[in-house]
Amino acid sequence: MNTLRAASHHPSRVTLVEVGPRDGLQNEKQTVPTATKVELVHRLQAAGLREIEVTSFVSPKWVPQMADNAAVMAAVQRRPGVRYSVLTPNLKGWEAAQASQPDEIVVFGAASEAFSQKNINCSIAESIERFAPVVAAARAAGVKVRGAISCAVGCPYEGAVAPARVEEVARRMAAIGVQHVGVADTIGVGTPRQVQAALEAALRHYPLHEVSGHFHDTYGMAVANVLASLELGIATFDTSVSGLGGCPYARGATGNVATEDVVYLLHGLGIETGVDLDALIDAGLFIREALGQTSGSRAARALQARCPT
Amino acid sequence: MNTLRAASHHPSRVTLVEVGPRDGLQNEKQTVPTATKVELVHRLQAAGLREIEVTSFVSPKWVPQMADNAAVMAAVQRRPGVRYSVLTPNLKGWEAAQASQPDEIVVFGAASEAFSQKNINCSIAESIERFAPVVAAARAAGVKVRGAISCAVGCPYEGAVAPARVEEVARRMAAIGVQHVGVADTIGVGTPRQVQAALEAALRHYPLHEVSGHFHDTYGMAVANVLASLELGIATFDTSVSGLGGCPYARGATGNVATEDVVYLLHGLGIETGVDLDALIDAGLFIREALGQTSGSRAARALQARCPT
Repeated sequence: MNTLRAASHHPSRVTLVEVGPRDGLQNEKQTVPTATKVELVHRLQAAGLREIEVTSFVSPKWVPQMADNAAVMAAVQRRPGVRYSVLTPNLKGWEAAQASQPDEIVVFGAASEAFSQKNINCSIAESIERFAPVVAAARAAGVKVRGAISCAVGCPYEGAVAPARVEEVARRMAAIGVQHVGVADTIGVGTPRQVQAALEAALRHYPLHEVSGHFHDTYGMAVANVLASLELGIATFDTSVSGLGGCPYARGATGNVATEDVVYLLHGLGIETGVDLDALIDAGLFIREALGQTSGSRAARALQARCPT
Repeated sequence: MNTLRAASHHPSRVTLVEVGPRDGLQNEKQTVPTATKVELVHRLQAAGLREIEVTSFVSPKWVPQMADNAAVMAAVQRRPGVRYSVLTPNLKGWEAAQASQPDEIVVFGAASEAFSQKNINCSIAESIERFAPVVAAARAAGVKVRGAISCAVGCPYEGAVAPARVEEVARRMAAIGVQHVGVADTIGVGTPRQVQAALEAALRHYPLHEVSGHFHDTYGMAVANVLASLELGIATFDTSVSGLGGCPYARGATGNVATEDVVYLLHGLGIETGVDLDALIDAGLFIREALGQTSGSRAARALQARCPT
């Protein structure tokens, strides 16, 4: 019993997909200047992040913050070895995104029927079918497709979401050619066993290296959920610098798990990330100062305070 | 690989030692009225907490906030089945505490030599020897003695603390008759494997049910560290309602892990605590309102926001 058994399952290296510029900023009310967004991406890649979700090709009527999507993509000075992804909710989005030459696109489906109906006005099955031509077009263009399974643990309308619903979405995504799925606890209600069950459901249709975790820290569970995911061998996580972002369905909610906190955890576990934590904290400071906000990362706040450790 | 193996180690029931009234309030600058402290204890026990660290019998010159220790203890309407503990840093403290009839006393020693020297002006070995008569007197009076091992993972002066140092303190505490040890990550720098190693060190001298975890959330790791502790079978944790408390050695630091967050985690894992989360959140609201502060518990903030889940 008293052995470090759990640790032995951990991967030796983890890939972090930095979603701050897209998922983090999309609900931000003040308009963030294009130059600020570009500078953020530059700082993130300089800190060692190798996958960055840059923007969203969605109607500016829905998400005005992302109206400068093409301008941001054009201004980013790309580094070899870094993958730049964009969200494309439909064929029109994909067509608009194509000129920006993303390395990867992201499509999404909810594991909750009520959430799907309320937010995109169609069933889960219909929503995924609608992505089929987007996926086909992207793959024909040599662009990788990731699928985000939102509300994979809980839904603001339905409550708990059964793992079987996650499996169903993963199955449908696999069927239309989505190459990777992210299991997203969109409202941050999940605890470790629930999150493991949702990941296991996705793993029935995808290999370990093509399943990632996306956790919000609304209830303070995100870092523990990352730990629980590592124990299953999951080695890819979406994270957001300084915890940028929030869930519009949970007032008072904190946002995505902070990249800094996850890096602190992983390095403490002896897991490589390729990320320079100090440079990452500076990137987080940069964007939070631009927004006039304090960091949502506890590790960043503690390290900024420069306590004597 | 893809099994819920880790979960199988978890205890089915966990005891939470609520330290908010003592460890949480001790560094609070504004004087908290005695009646407020008593009301807090009453609300905590009404919420189902069965172990409460009520106050400290320490010189009011050192900790003015605890100057009303005897008055608080006298005013608490005790409930059967609830254990009330107090901190007694020396024989004088024990003598003062005795009239208040605590069920348990807490003594402490650091696992860091530098911390011991700077804070209590003596070596670790000397500090523990000084407790020997306190322990003997308490046990002769039928009062249980818990020992807190502070800086068990990291120290603000020395940096990382080796598990061997924790084992040494646990050994010395066992030798003088301390019945239970709490492994405390006082400055919140620990990550799960480090915390497990520190707990393992204590487990060489104490059985599982007499070792507890005490984690600060300074770097956002506390809930993950609780999870990692559960995997070793640890079933007792110190927690602080609404995350009351902070570490004077880490500016900008958050305090003890919030009881609400740990209860949310444990209930999500199917582990019993006997605590009513709603009543607990109300207790946290009560004390934070009295202090003019917002809660440090993410679960409490999310649940107060009453999102539709």
